Amino acid sequence: PRKLKDGVTKRMKNVKKFGKDDPRRIIHSMKVGVALTLVSLLYYVRALYISFGVTGMWAILTVVVVFEFTVGGTLSKGLNRGFATLIAGALGVGAVHLARFFGHQGEPIVLGILVFSLGGAATFSRFFPRIKHRYDYGALIFILTFSFVAISGYRTDEILIMAYQRLSTILIGGTICILVSIFICPVWAGEDLHKMIANNINKLAKYLEGFESEYFQPEKISKETNSCVREYKSILTSKSTEDTLANLARWEPGHGRFRLRHPWKKYLKIAGLVRQCAFHFEILNGYVLSNDKAPQEFDSKFQEPITIMNREVGEALKAMAKSIKTMSKDSACVNSHIDNSKKAIVNLRIALKSSYPDTEKDLLEIIPGVTMASILIEVVNCVEKISEA
Amino acid sequence: PRKLKDGVTKRMKNVKKFGKDDPRRIIHSMKVGVALTLVSLLYYVRALYISFGVTGMWAILTVVVVFEFTVGGTLSKGLNRGFATLIAGALGVGAVHLARFFGHQGEPIVLGILVFSLGGAATFSRFFPRIKHRYDYGALIFILTFSFVAISGYRTDEILIMAYQRLSTILIGGTICILVSIFICPVWAGEDLHKMIANNINKLAKYLEGFESEYFQPEKISKETNSCVREYKSILTSKSTEDTLANLARWEPGHGRFRLRHPWKKYLKIAGLVRQCAFHFEILNGYVLSNDKAPQEFDSKFQEPITIMNREVGEALKAMAKSIKTMSKDSACVNSHIDNSKKAIVNLRIALKSSYPDTEKDLLEIIPGVTMASILIEVVNCVEKISEA
Repeated sequence: PRKLKDGVTKRMKNVKKFGKDDPRRIIHSMKVGVALTLVSLLYYVRALYISFGVTGMWAILTVVVVFEFTVGGTLSKGLNRGFATLIAGALGVGAVHLARFFGHQGEPIVLGILVFSLGGAATFSRFFPRIKHRYDYGALIFILTFSFVAISGYRTDEILIMAYQRLSTILIGGTICILVSIFICPVWAGEDLHKMIANNINKLAKYLEGFESEYFQPEKISKETNSCVREYKSILTSKSTEDTLANLARWEPGHGRFRLRHPWKKYLKIAGLVRQCAFHFEILNGYVLSNDKAPQEFDSKFQEPITIMNREVGEALKAMAKSIKTMSKDSACVNSHIDNSKKAIVNLRIALKSSYPDTEKDLLEIIPGVTMASILIEVVNCVEKISEA
Repeated sequence: PRKLKDGVTKRMKNVKKFGKDDPRRIIHSMKVGVALTLVSLLYYVRALYISFGVTGMWAILTVVVVFEFTVGGTLSKGLNRGFATLIAGALGVGAVHLARFFGHQGEPIVLGILVFSLGGAATFSRFFPRIKHRYDYGALIFILTFSFVAISGYRTDEILIMAYQRLSTILIGGTICILVSIFICPVWAGEDLHKMIANNINKLAKYLEGFESEYFQPEKISKETNSCVREYKSILTSKSTEDTLANLARWEPGHGRFRLRHPWKKYLKIAGLVRQCAFHFEILNGYVLSNDKAPQEFDSKFQEPITIMNREVGEALKAMAKSIKTMSKDSACVNSHIDNSKKAIVNLRIALKSSYPDTEKDLLEIIPGVTMASILIEVVNCVEKISEA
């Protein structure tokens, strides 16, 4: 029992820590609870129950399924659900009326064919990348609602009333979701994207800072700095997250310092450049970790220009991250750092030329540094151009 | 009207081509149609309708929501849905009975608190990466079913009958989905993953083949080969797709030449190495496209060893892709190619040493080739070790 207790307390601590890492998670959970409670009033309040009856459960279903972590997600799902239900409901009612013409024997056959063909077509449409990106959920709901209406239309005569009740409860559920997600501590996908990109640039700067000490004083590295320096690795595979966020951000109304029609595509472009940069770091990292280093005296010749170069590029990146974060343009500062690092590169080239490279191994070590720096500068220039937003 | 007609025929052609690119998409759409038609029999056949009534619609809902493109996806969703419904249903019935103790006034309050807290807790659990990976859908269904049962329990007395009917229809819907997806032209996520990795290795080989002609004869490049050569780019960002597939593959039973408990993690490992390799190509690609090339006579010295190296590494990659595809171990062939490419690297080193590098620029061009090749060899070795599966 002692062991069990320890295990439980340990797990509890973990959960607590997880919540503390991002308190928005806890808030989101509470918000879902609030929305669910609100929607269950449809059942508890007698007046509402009389007018809606059992279809109130559609409101519950909508709340559970539509409520997403970000405002953009909730809006896109809610709107998709609403419109898809409307269209599919109308088509379904039409299908039932059409099928009635074929008599009692023919009705299920006609309905079956319609369900089969429309369901198949809608499923097929979900494979198109464009529809998948923005209307995937809508297509799903379309299939669902259409089959519901068409199939149950065979057994009920009050199909219009049913459709009306269902639509109205879904609207209620969707509205509750959207209102709660917007007005109680909203989580904006656009803001997340914005922060994420600024953070990624910061991570690059951090790596550059760590790079020097790691490469030139390998005995000093503790495990802690190592993991901090390696943060850039997450950038390598962040593409899908960024795409999703940008996709959701499009659905969001203007908020905070973001205007409507914010250039989300530009964010993706910056993110792509940042990732390109991280690719270079990844390669560079291979050299830092590899065992066959260049001789000491050779390295020491280049330490100074490389150090300056790294520092300046790092500063430039930091300045950019800051200017993105605060959405102010501060290109003067960025530019001066870039100029300084360019000067450092020239120095490095002179140093390289003056020293006679004995073996190709030494160069293997040094060249990527230059390479990277020059590409970094390109990246920096690009980002600068774009960050005007 | 003429223009409209042209537009329509053009669009139709596009759709047709899209279907032909991957005929499994069309088959999948048909399968969804079949499953929907089967499940609608619950409504059309009188005997079945009498025993299930309106709850038959839960079967429709299950089919629409659970049916996924791959068998793994369908199985994971179906099983998640089944178990989550079972657990949440039981808890919901318990909650309703508990709430009855508090009298007619207290009942909605107690139920509201329970729904709020359990819904919030389940939402929170969805943030944990481990649960998110495998049981995200289950948690969603848990919230849904629990709120349904608990809330509607306030208005019905026949809660057990309702729960039983709902569970049985969900089981019917889920079973239809799983059977249709397994027995009618199944699409296995495991097989997709397998093929994707073999293809990715092939893409790498293709790039190496194209690399030589692109770098040494830049005037010959047509746009067509270019796009074919650039295929490796898709590897850079394929991580999330691979993760998803591996995740789904875990749910699948043994099939084809795959045994149960297939080492999906090893696939991810190989994929990671392949991606690492693609990162190097990405950097290399920058040099190929850049304008400041090394002087002609310098390049020509190295053309031969580089060509041999590329060819051999490319062949080794191809042999590996083949051996993965056919699941046969053919390391002798792979090894001989690797040995040859190692020899080529030694030659390249000698060539580098003998020529006096004038400027650092020339080296900038050549070094990455060596670098990449040596890392490629590491990768090749690793993959070889792993491909024993």
